[in-house]
Amino acid sequence: MAATAWSKSRSTIHEFDLVRALQQRHGRKSPSVIRGIGDDAAVVTSGAGRWSLLTTDLLAEGVHFDLRTATMSDIGFRAAAANLSDIAAMGGTPQYVLVALAIPRTGTSGQVQQLYRGLMAACRPHHVQLIGGDTSASHGGWFISLTLVGTVPARKALFRNGARVGDLLYVTGTIGDSFAGLRLLREPPRRAALSPRHRKFLIGRHLRPTARLAEGQWLRTHRFATSAIDISDGLSGDLRHICEESHVGADLDLNALPLSPACRAYAASRTLDPVALALTGGEDYELLFTLSPRHKAQVERTATLRRFSMTCIGTIRPARNGIQAIGQDGTKRPLPITSYEHFR
Amino acid sequence: MAATAWSKSRSTIHEFDLVRALQQRHGRKSPSVIRGIGDDAAVVTSGAGRWSLLTTDLLAEGVHFDLRTATMSDIGFRAAAANLSDIAAMGGTPQYVLVALAIPRTGTSGQVQQLYRGLMAACRPHHVQLIGGDTSASHGGWFISLTLVGTVPARKALFRNGARVGDLLYVTGTIGDSFAGLRLLREPPRRAALSPRHRKFLIGRHLRPTARLAEGQWLRTHRFATSAIDISDGLSGDLRHICEESHVGADLDLNALPLSPACRAYAASRTLDPVALALTGGEDYELLFTLSPRHKAQVERTATLRRFSMTCIGTIRPARNGIQAIGQDGTKRPLPITSYEHFR
Repeated sequence: MAATAWSKSRSTIHEFDLVRALQQRHGRKSPSVIRGIGDDAAVVTSGAGRWSLLTTDLLAEGVHFDLRTATMSDIGFRAAAANLSDIAAMGGTPQYVLVALAIPRTGTSGQVQQLYRGLMAACRPHHVQLIGGDTSASHGGWFISLTLVGTVPARKALFRNGARVGDLLYVTGTIGDSFAGLRLLREPPRRAALSPRHRKFLIGRHLRPTARLAEGQWLRTHRFATSAIDISDGLSGDLRHICEESHVGADLDLNALPLSPACRAYAASRTLDPVALALTGGEDYELLFTLSPRHKAQVERTATLRRFSMTCIGTIRPARNGIQAIGQDGTKRPLPITSYEHFR
Repeated sequence: MAATAWSKSRSTIHEFDLVRALQQRHGRKSPSVIRGIGDDAAVVTSGAGRWSLLTTDLLAEGVHFDLRTATMSDIGFRAAAANLSDIAAMGGTPQYVLVALAIPRTGTSGQVQQLYRGLMAACRPHHVQLIGGDTSASHGGWFISLTLVGTVPARKALFRNGARVGDLLYVTGTIGDSFAGLRLLREPPRRAALSPRHRKFLIGRHLRPTARLAEGQWLRTHRFATSAIDISDGLSGDLRHICEESHVGADLDLNALPLSPACRAYAASRTLDPVALALTGGEDYELLFTLSPRHKAQVERTATLRRFSMTCIGTIRPARNGIQAIGQDGTKRPLPITSYEHFR
């Protein structure tokens, strides 16, 4: 759903903005459309006290994936995980998937089988049913477009626009891993620069991300979260989405960002700032959410019981505060508008 | 939804068959899935006495459309019409559309605007809301993937598999026009070979097809039709789908096929058999349906009142009959398995 910086190539940036404008213009709402364009998934009424969630993603060879660094199975898995993550960010339960696939002349049966295998490996644990699709020849590489349908009790979906001043800002899991994994895949081979265990972890986080469905549903069921989004553009960009949609600002504590040992080791070995990886690296598919401070103790206690990993990384402030980053020395400065361009 | 012969290039034929096999394998059904892969749209329960219809189509530049013969607006219109037609064939009401778009480097803002304009021109008369999408760069031309969501009262959808021996076979509108229009677009310019009026009609039928939504809903509301499909592969192929799914045969009266004056004139001017155009030409997006002979008089009377154009073109026979074509001389012979390959 989210048109990510990840998916943009510089030359078409203005077309992406145009598409957003066109979609806003053409996307007029009827009463059955609870949310159209602009959240992680579209939300429509579906009778019997339920809402339906719909999200679509298009992945293009050479833009979103590279067959030199990912297997077709990885690509299928990641495509499904990205869509599942959109449903997770709404607190929903995924149900059905439709797969549109354009196959280049060089595509083999084995590749197609692998793609479906990866796709279903991501979907099966969540009981997502493959119900439809379309197949085409392609004169320009592989294109995979997934549409995922989910459900959520009416009036219970998590949106981007519910953050309130004073709310605490949380993120699940660790961030920056996927970007580190992508960088590793694209680096020329180096020897002994990173332990095989860390390398495997980071590449796994990039190629086989986990959609935080259980966490999203838990946050929704207990009405803990006031807003949520999945981290597809990068923490910096996605926090900005929450702030813009909720008309608030935020203080982000850079010292609190949950960084994995592998991400720290990778950054150290390449003399990179791990915080920069975490802020600008996309496709972690962790959940960024806000909750009232009065739920803090209860949320953290039950999260521990359920083995959910989540970290408080900041506070929602009035809009006039803007988005401030609290650095190691405790000083605040405006969070730079950063994201990263894709590798092509 | 339907993977049409239209969309295949010879080299990937076996991958298409493989995808179908994989989808069948992975597409296991839960009780909420009324129809998965294999009809015009997927059908799932949606509460409150309704079923949801979901269909997706992927159109690739150079496979499904050619920018030398169609404007971006035509392409958007036709993409929407093809999906609307899948909903029409189920007797449903279309509601929502999601648009995934891959834009080549050469793509301009004007082209994107035109695409959306055409798409919404097809959707707006049916009150279809644009609720989501995704946008990507493309290194291989334009790719457009639409997902359309519709609704139908529970247990009222029209399927391919309900035809019964003795039922009459009907088709809406005229057939073969779209294929004639495509051929015209691809021909080198000829002078005075066809009247401008006929030329305009046929090209219009190809580039701006009409999804027969009102007809499909009428057939469903009155429970007239025992089965229905939209003509995307060509009459010959789509009749075969109905017969296979319903485990029946058919007699198809070639003398009764509804051919437009323009299609006849085109065929005459190119010394082609107009019946062959009608049998093998795809993308007419007319409805092919069956009904009990006891409804014949009522259906034909109310169709006239509603200005629905429909023609009886055959009879459903036992499976052992196979699919027989009744020729001009009244003799029966097996309908050849014909379809046409796309232009690339």
